Amino acid sequence: MHAHPSRQKFIDAAIAVVREQGYAATSVDDICARAGVGKGSFFHHFKSKEELLLAAIEHWNAFTGAVFADAPFRRLADPRARLLGYVDFRIAILDRPIPEFACLLGTLVQEVYQSHPALLAACDAGMSGHIDDLVADAAAAKALYAPDADWTPESVGFFMQAVLQGSFIFAKAKNEAEVARDNLAHLRRYLESLFPPAAKKE
Amino acid sequence: MHAHPSRQKFIDAAIAVVREQGYAATSVDDICARAGVGKGSFFHHFKSKEELLLAAIEHWNAFTGAVFADAPFRRLADPRARLLGYVDFRIAILDRPIPEFACLLGTLVQEVYQSHPALLAACDAGMSGHIDDLVADAAAAKALYAPDADWTPESVGFFMQAVLQGSFIFAKAKNEAEVARDNLAHLRRYLESLFPPAAKKE
Repeated sequence: MHAHPSRQKFIDAAIAVVREQGYAATSVDDICARAGVGKGSFFHHFKSKEELLLAAIEHWNAFTGAVFADAPFRRLADPRARLLGYVDFRIAILDRPIPEFACLLGTLVQEVYQSHPALLAACDAGMSGHIDDLVADAAAAKALYAPDADWTPESVGFFMQAVLQGSFIFAKAKNEAEVARDNLAHLRRYLESLFPPAAKKE
Repeated sequence: MHAHPSRQKFIDAAIAVVREQGYAATSVDDICARAGVGKGSFFHHFKSKEELLLAAIEHWNAFTGAVFADAPFRRLADPRARLLGYVDFRIAILDRPIPEFACLLGTLVQEVYQSHPALLAACDAGMSGHIDDLVADAAAAKALYAPDADWTPESVGFFMQAVLQGSFIFAKAKNEAEVARDNLAHLRRYLESLFPPAAKKE
């Protein structure tokens, strides 16, 4: 099923503009201007900016989900290699402009966590859904490489995402991705130490 | 030198309200209401919301700088212990409500990085200034515990802050600090492995 072309234009415009300037600073007019579609059409498809953002988050989750599901590292047989491959994939993405690699959901959370419960719940669900794949890999890698360790696979997934989200903030602060690259190199080194190859159970 | 009482009330109100709801969603009226001081007084002290935020960032840097300078871990003799003590101090702070432990600067960066260059520069300077103390400890700890490692002390400081900033996002997403606590436990474990005590040069 494909969305109505105008509806999809509003969704794409909302994702682009909110990643650049945040939620509160973005008006319906800004979104219409970016979409190149009029305000009458906007209110035919959406009751409000919040309703559009809920649709945008759903689209974001489906789109980014497909990007990561199709990435080459996903086909690696070893779960430790998949976790490290995920980090390498994230490092490779950093070559793009900042608004194209930063996270819509992580940005939104900062603004809406006390004011828009529906948006917050959608962001939390989206971020946690993305983490589920990492947790599955971390659980499989733990069973193979670190069965007796006292940390949980779930905490590894959240830690990986926290490093990414924090790195996006510093990339924005410095307007360049080098600091994010260095952070992900540290994350990779940490994951290597959590899953020591020498310990692999055959 | 003490600021004029009304001026300081506006600064304190701005820090509180922006930590809760972000920059763009916060109006001068919101800040006046929180401060309990009228709008006439506001524009006597500040030309604009942006000018107030620049003053608020300056106050934030001085205030948080004093909190960390006075913390007990700062007086530990060993630089490795100071780095781990910093993490423990951050974990202890997580008992407070989220708007009281999250970072004004990290929140602001997300909204202003493309639209308000003066605010962005002030946030970057404030965050980097805070990191300077960690970098000094990381450099001293590296000389003692990991002189041949191929990472830089500066990258360790930024990594520590990225974990914190990302953890604040997840605390907001989940409206509870547990995920941040788990992340800081991972950060602590990583720092322990970067500076292995057994390697200490006497």
